[in-house]
Amino acid sequence: MNLKIGVIKGDGIGPEIVTEAMKVLDQVGEVYGHTCEYEQLLMGGASIDVHGIPLTDETVETAKACDAVLMGSIGGDAKTSPWYKLEPSKRPEAGLLKIRKALNLFANLRPAVLYDELKGACPLKEEITEGGFDMMIMRELTGGLYFGERKTVEEDGVLKAYDSLTYNENEIRRIAKRGFDIAMKRRKKVTSVDKANVLDSSRLWRKVVEEVAEDYPEVALEHMLVDNCAMQLVRDPKQFDVILTENMFGDILSDEASMVTGSIGMLASASLNETKFGLYEPSGGSAPDIAGKGIANPIATILSAAMMLRFSFDLDKEADAIEQAVSQVLKDGYRTIDIMSEGKKQIGTVEMGDLIAGYI
Amino acid sequence: MNLKIGVIKGDGIGPEIVTEAMKVLDQVGEVYGHTCEYEQLLMGGASIDVHGIPLTDETVETAKACDAVLMGSIGGDAKTSPWYKLEPSKRPEAGLLKIRKALNLFANLRPAVLYDELKGACPLKEEITEGGFDMMIMRELTGGLYFGERKTVEEDGVLKAYDSLTYNENEIRRIAKRGFDIAMKRRKKVTSVDKANVLDSSRLWRKVVEEVAEDYPEVALEHMLVDNCAMQLVRDPKQFDVILTENMFGDILSDEASMVTGSIGMLASASLNETKFGLYEPSGGSAPDIAGKGIANPIATILSAAMMLRFSFDLDKEADAIEQAVSQVLKDGYRTIDIMSEGKKQIGTVEMGDLIAGYI
Ligand SMILES: CC(C)[C@H](C(=O)O)[C@@H](O)C(=O)O
Ligand SMILES: CC(C)[C@H](C(=O)O)[C@@H](O)C(=O)O
Repeated sequence: MNLKIGVIKGDGIGPEIVTEAMKVLDQVGEVYGHTCEYEQLLMGGASIDVHGIPLTDETVETAKACDAVLMGSIGGDAKTSPWYKLEPSKRPEAGLLKIRKALNLFANLRPAVLYDELKGACPLKEEITEGGFDMMIMRELTGGLYFGERKTVEEDGVLKAYDSLTYNENEIRRIAKRGFDIAMKRRKKVTSVDKANVLDSSRLWRKVVEEVAEDYPEVALEHMLVDNCAMQLVRDPKQFDVILTENMFGDILSDEASMVTGSIGMLASASLNETKFGLYEPSGGSAPDIAGKGIANPIATILSAAMMLRFSFDLDKEADAIEQAVSQVLKDGYRTIDIMSEGKKQIGTVEMGDLIAGYI
Repeated sequence: MNLKIGVIKGDGIGPEIVTEAMKVLDQVGEVYGHTCEYEQLLMGGASIDVHGIPLTDETVETAKACDAVLMGSIGGDAKTSPWYKLEPSKRPEAGLLKIRKALNLFANLRPAVLYDELKGACPLKEEITEGGFDMMIMRELTGGLYFGERKTVEEDGVLKAYDSLTYNENEIRRIAKRGFDIAMKRRKKVTSVDKANVLDSSRLWRKVVEEVAEDYPEVALEHMLVDNCAMQLVRDPKQFDVILTENMFGDILSDEASMVTGSIGMLASASLNETKFGLYEPSGGSAPDIAGKGIANPIATILSAAMMLRFSFDLDKEADAIEQAVSQVLKDGYRTIDIMSEGKKQIGTVEMGDLIAGYI
């Protein structure tokens, strides 16, 4: 199979970690008889340097012509990065929001998994996490406050800022379906998170999710208020299978959940549209402080590449191979510094990529 | 001094826990020579039962005529409570939003403290919480998404729901000042939380907070994005002193922070307006499942009464006396079931109130 993959190396540690993911993908290609054809795309700081803006329309078009896009991380250091040449209001957020909307990537999947080998890094007490946890956050990514109308105006000498939060039935229905579809392949439980005791958009959310649930009689649905969910993630993360929520709540809860695992450097993500197309990126940030030092953890990006094989190319066997290779390297005791613990073998970004590729 | 205190017993465990707080207040009155005059106010289920709505205008007026209001908890069990006679859209949320707005309670203070004696209940590993933590969340309570315009309309047969998030300079300035004022009495650090990489309201928030900060050169100000803050509360809660944030973010983060302490039954809150007036209530919910069993923890409500003495009546000595009495009872090993641990003495709601009153 020929895989046409757009590659956005991005800012900070992005180039280093993406390089390792490409190495692993190439090895998969070699072993399973596929060809990866990469198309380099500029976004974030690299695009500002060349084009003056974080994402050009041409880049969007080139991305659309790919089967999928693999991305490092976008974001920079306030003082030194090229994107701080731009006004804050021109950054949001350095191409990320534009690419999500332009490619209609409405379904953002963020797994939060406690790896048995990395339990030590989990901030929660062991009695809470015993047996591990494994949840999938399904965040709506192209609606809500992120894409509502906004403005700042002066009224009688007083500045006033507006943002608006809108959802229509169809937007809710399509993400809810994705949530239930994923739940069917997992433990068949959906926790839909909203603030239905306050927001009209949440009341509509709840209504539509209930309608969609009727088509999935095997899936257990529960509703949870967002403030309660923020508590439950800390109190008892094991209770969750699929968390289904809107854009802003998903932003907050997925980051909280990722920190609850204690190993952000391990967490992949996928952003999908209605077709097989998707954008795949690590959950963590661009970590400008450690960029270029060869110590960043490439595993989240490598696992994002596995998600890409699974969701955009239906190559489940190949995706499994990557996931098993990662497990094996962890079992062998190799760790980058962010997940290092006593008695383990500390290695750098490139070695980690080599070891994982070696197990394919 | 004559203290004219409105009392909203509320739903679920509300009446039980408020009764104990009143017992402690009366004891303070006796020892320090004050008279507490209570005015019973109906809100939530009790008001729906009598008036058909969760909060009448008359009750609001009576509340205004008090110096402060002490409240139990509002909220019910979906199946059995009187307020489920009401349409969901008529509940928001059973009087709470109306009373906040009507009394202009824009400054919501929620302490999140890890008590040394209750470390066992904290979900975080000990290496993270060593030495304890003590933060104050200052949440804006009368603006933002909670009080924006909202509507649900049908357009071409498709339902569409809108909520709006608005803040003006003045609203931001007054809450920011409160945040810095509180920080001056604490460890002199303010973490202002927003989503300035996406929202116009957050960009205005950040600008105004920076302006206010100029008047407080001794206070260290940092800005943090809300998704990052949700992570940091789990990763390293000790870093926080005062967290200053808008209404919806404050709702989510204060609940997360309260769960991070592991002892919600201990957490008080205050909602203040521009005068000395305030509404004081426990952070936890109405817990309908344990209502009437005499096992609910009254400490959060008792500590809310202490906040009332401090903020509405400037009775610092009396407030200290309550806080010390609570500490002493904990040191003596008495616990309600929610904070019970091995080797401690389990007692009920009334006994807890008696013991604390006994130490005044
Ligand atoms: C950078 C920012 C705009 C973005 C978001 O809020 O969606 C990020 O936090 C994320 O979660 O991908
Ligand atoms: C009950 C609800 C409307 C309320 C809120 O969201 O403000 C509650 O969660 C709180 O934090 O006091």
